[in-house]
Amino acid sequence: MDKVLDSAADAVGDIPDGAVLAVGGFGLCGIPSTLIGALAATDTTGLRVVSNNCGVDDWGLGLLLRAGRIARMTSSYVGENKEFARQYLSGELEVELTPQGTLAERLRAGGAGIPAFFTPAGVGTQVEEGGLPWRYAADGSVAVASPPKEVREFGGRRHLLEEAITADFALVRAEVADRHGNCVFHAAARNFNPLCATAGRITVVEADRIVEPGELAPDAVHLPGVYVDRVVAADPQDRRIERRTVRAAAPEDAAGSTARNALAARAARELRDGQYVNLGIGLPTLIPDHLPAGVHVVLHSENGILGVGPFPVEGDEHPDLINAGKETVTLTAGASTFDSTSSFGMVRAGRIDVSVLGAMQVSATGDLANWMIPGKTVKGMGGAMDLVHGARRLIVVMEHTARDGSPKIVERLSLPATGRGVVDRIVTELAVIDVAPEGLRLVETAPGVTVDEVRAATGAALLPPLSARAAPPVRHTH
Amino acid sequence: MDKVLDSAADAVGDIPDGAVLAVGGFGLCGIPSTLIGALAATDTTGLRVVSNNCGVDDWGLGLLLRAGRIARMTSSYVGENKEFARQYLSGELEVELTPQGTLAERLRAGGAGIPAFFTPAGVGTQVEEGGLPWRYAADGSVAVASPPKEVREFGGRRHLLEEAITADFALVRAEVADRHGNCVFHAAARNFNPLCATAGRITVVEADRIVEPGELAPDAVHLPGVYVDRVVAADPQDRRIERRTVRAAAPEDAAGSTARNALAARAARELRDGQYVNLGIGLPTLIPDHLPAGVHVVLHSENGILGVGPFPVEGDEHPDLINAGKETVTLTAGASTFDSTSSFGMVRAGRIDVSVLGAMQVSATGDLANWMIPGKTVKGMGGAMDLVHGARRLIVVMEHTARDGSPKIVERLSLPATGRGVVDRIVTELAVIDVAPEGLRLVETAPGVTVDEVRAATGAALLPPLSARAAPPVRHTH
Repeated sequence: MDKVLDSAADAVGDIPDGAVLAVGGFGLCGIPSTLIGALAATDTTGLRVVSNNCGVDDWGLGLLLRAGRIARMTSSYVGENKEFARQYLSGELEVELTPQGTLAERLRAGGAGIPAFFTPAGVGTQVEEGGLPWRYAADGSVAVASPPKEVREFGGRRHLLEEAITADFALVRAEVADRHGNCVFHAAARNFNPLCATAGRITVVEADRIVEPGELAPDAVHLPGVYVDRVVAADPQDRRIERRTVRAAAPEDAAGSTARNALAARAARELRDGQYVNLGIGLPTLIPDHLPAGVHVVLHSENGILGVGPFPVEGDEHPDLINAGKETVTLTAGASTFDSTSSFGMVRAGRIDVSVLGAMQVSATGDLANWMIPGKTVKGMGGAMDLVHGARRLIVVMEHTARDGSPKIVERLSLPATGRGVVDRIVTELAVIDVAPEGLRLVETAPGVTVDEVRAATGAALLPPLSARAAPPVRHTH
Repeated sequence: MDKVLDSAADAVGDIPDGAVLAVGGFGLCGIPSTLIGALAATDTTGLRVVSNNCGVDDWGLGLLLRAGRIARMTSSYVGENKEFARQYLSGELEVELTPQGTLAERLRAGGAGIPAFFTPAGVGTQVEEGGLPWRYAADGSVAVASPPKEVREFGGRRHLLEEAITADFALVRAEVADRHGNCVFHAAARNFNPLCATAGRITVVEADRIVEPGELAPDAVHLPGVYVDRVVAADPQDRRIERRTVRAAAPEDAAGSTARNALAARAARELRDGQYVNLGIGLPTLIPDHLPAGVHVVLHSENGILGVGPFPVEGDEHPDLINAGKETVTLTAGASTFDSTSSFGMVRAGRIDVSVLGAMQVSATGDLANWMIPGKTVKGMGGAMDLVHGARRLIVVMEHTARDGSPKIVERLSLPATGRGVVDRIVTELAVIDVAPEGLRLVETAPGVTVDEVRAATGAALLPPLSARAAPPVRHTH
C-alpha cells in the first residue's frame, strides 16, 4: 500500500510513445513540473496530452512541446504561448480546443465512469457545428476539422453531447500526499489536478510534502488515495509565477488609462451588493476598484476561487494564488477554493449572477465573438463558452470600435461565435446598449457623446432609449 | 451577504404545498433534523422529496411521512422503514426507486447545469426496461410504472440516459457554516448533503456551528457559499444512531454463528493484500475478521468512506461515522471521507477492486437478483446496481439455498435483476462456483460436502472443476 517511489524518473519511466497523458495545472499554477522534467529527460515522444494549457516556452509542458514530443493537445487555451500557436497554425501539432468547463467535466466524467453527458457550452458555435480546425495543412488550410456534435433539447434549451476523457497516465501536483496516495491541494493549484488524477489509468502524483497515513485529516483529503498509483517528492523550489501582479502603492500608480478607468467605473455601476461576479481577463479586472460605496461583490475566478481579493502587496505573491488571467491575487475573508469542475458547475447551474467579458464582436441578437480570428489569432475559448451560457446576466465591456475604426457591434457576426443570444448589455466608452427582444436599444450615452456619434460607430440598428428608464432586464435562465 | 436567519421556522416558512425538496443525509446520518422538525410544525403538504432514505418512523423525514405530508419520494432505499414500505405498497405514496449512485449523480448534475448523462447502473434491469412500480393501486396492481430509459453503447458497453434532478428547496446539514454560507461536513455525514445543496434553487443549511467569514480555511470548504441561501443553527443534540454497533470485548463474543463465520472466512480468502474492497450489508461485513495474515485491504463504504475500521469500542460510537449498513464504525489511519457522488464515481470508474454482495438469486450467466421481491419486499436497490457494474470483481456470498430449500443458483432469474452478467464468483457454505464464459464451474466443495450434494442444491448445470486449478479470472473492465 506504500505508493511512494524514490524518483520521478522511476515514476514516468514506463510511459510509452504515443501515450495519452492527463496533466494537471492551470497556466503555470499547480503543474507537475518535476514529473514533466523527468519525462523530458526520456526520449518518449508522440504524446497526446490533455491539459488546459501547454506551459510556456521553457517550462512545464512547453519543454516537451518545444522538443517536438507532443503530437496532439486537448486544451481550452493557447493564449500567449507563441510556440503552441506556431506549431498549431503551421500544422505541426494537432489541437482539440475544448471549452474549459467542458474539458473539466469530460475529465471528471472519465474518472467517474460516466461515458458522456450533455452541456450547453458551445451551442451555436463551431464546437456544435464542427469545422473547428484540429490540424492545419502546410498551406494554412484546415487538414482535419472537428466533427459536429449531437444536439438535444432539455428544458427547452439546446445542449451538446460531450464524451468522457480518460488517459493512460495522469501527472498531477499536490501540496501534500500520504503514502496511501491521499492528496491535499493548495489554493488555486487544485484546478484540474484532482480531475486528471481520477481520469488516469495510472496516476502519478508529485507532492511538496509526503506524510504518513493518518497525518491527513480524513475530511480534508481532496483526492482519495484509491485514485493514486505512484507518489514522488516534488521539488518545492520548482515553481514559477506567470504574471506577477502587485497592488499599486498609491491610487495614482493604478494601471490603466483614464479612459479605461472611466469605462471600468461605468461597468462597476452594473453590479449590485451581494452578487457573485465573474470578471473576464483585461479591462473587467479594473472594475472592483470602482465599485460604488456599499456595493460588495464576491468575485469568482474560474480556475477555482470564490472570493478573489486585491492583488498582493509586493513580496506576498504566491504561485498557487492566481486568477484566471494568471495574475497573482489574494483571497478575501470567506473565500473558498475548489477544482475546475466544481468551478464550472456553479457557472453552468446559474449560481454566478453576473459575468463581465470583453468581446471582438457583438451582434444585434446578442451573439458574442471573443475567442478566435480564423487563421490569425488562436487564443482559445478558455472558459468563455461556459460562462456565456451559465452566468445569469452577461455584460460585455469593450471599446466601441476596432482599432481600424470598424464597428464591433454588428448585425451579424463575421467572426466565429462564442455563444448565440447570450449578451444582455454592452458597455463601451461611447454608450450603454441593451440586447432587447426587439433589438439593440440605446440605454445611455457617455458624457459628451451624442446619439448620432454612437449610431455612426455602430454597425447595427439602434432603438432609442425608453422614455422612462426601465430596470435592467435580469435573465431568469440562460 | 449575511445568510444567517434567526430560526429554522423562518428558513422553511415559505416552502409551499407540493414543493420539490432535496434533503441530505444517509440513513439518519447527517440529516437536517432541525429543518425537518420546523417543516413538520407547519401544515405544508403534498411534498415531493428527493432523499436517499426516508428517516425512521418517529424521526427525520419519517415525521413528515407518518403525517401523510409526502406525496412522492425519489430514493434508493426503503430498507427497514416499515411505514415507508407500507405507504408505497398500499398506493398511498409514489416512490421512484433509483440506484444510489445514479441518485447522487442526478443531484450533482442538477447542481452543475448538466441536464443528462449516461451511466451503466440499471442496464438489463427494470430501471432500463421500465415497469418499476412507481405507484401501486389499492388492489396491489401497479398503477404507475417507470418508463423505459434510452440505451446507448459507449466503448462496447450499454449505458442508460439519466436526467438531472433539481429541487425548489434543498435542506442540508453541515458541521460548520460561516455567515457567507461556506460549509464543512463531518465524516460520513457529508454523503448527499453537498449534492442536495447544489441542486436546490433555494438552499437552506442547518449547522452545528456558525462562524464568521474567514474562520474556515478556503481549502477546507466542502460546499462554497455561492450555493447556500440561508443558514440556521442546528440543535447539536438532535442526532440519533440507527444501529449502534460496538466491538466485541472478546473474540468469542463475536456475532454470528460458526457456519456464518466459516463462510466469511472462506470469502476472506478471495481478497488480496492492498485491494480496495466494498463489502455489502450482512454477512460480508464479517469478512475483515477473517483476513489471512499479511492481507490488508482498504474498505470502501458507499456512503462516503475509504478506510473503514472496526466497530468502535463501547462509548466511542459517533452518529457521523456509520457504514452503508448504518452500523457505527471507526476510521483507519489513511482513511478519507467524501460525498456520495465521489463515492460512486470511484465505483463506476473501476477503482474498487472487489465488491462482495449477498444475493437472492444468481443465474448461470452471472445475473444477480438481490433487491426486491415483487409485491412483497421492497428494500430498494441502494448502491447495488452501481456496484455490480463498477467493481472490477464481483463476489456473491450467500446461503446456497433459500429457507424453503429451493435453489438460489438458477438457470434464469425469476426475481428482478440487479445486473446482468455481473457475478464473477459465488461463495456458499457448500461450494465455490465461478461464472465462466462456458457456464457455471465448480471450483471447490466445502469440507465434507460432495459434488453430488452441491449439484442437488443447485438449480443450474455445473461444470466440473478444472483439473489444474486456474487462477481466479479477473475482469478487465465491467
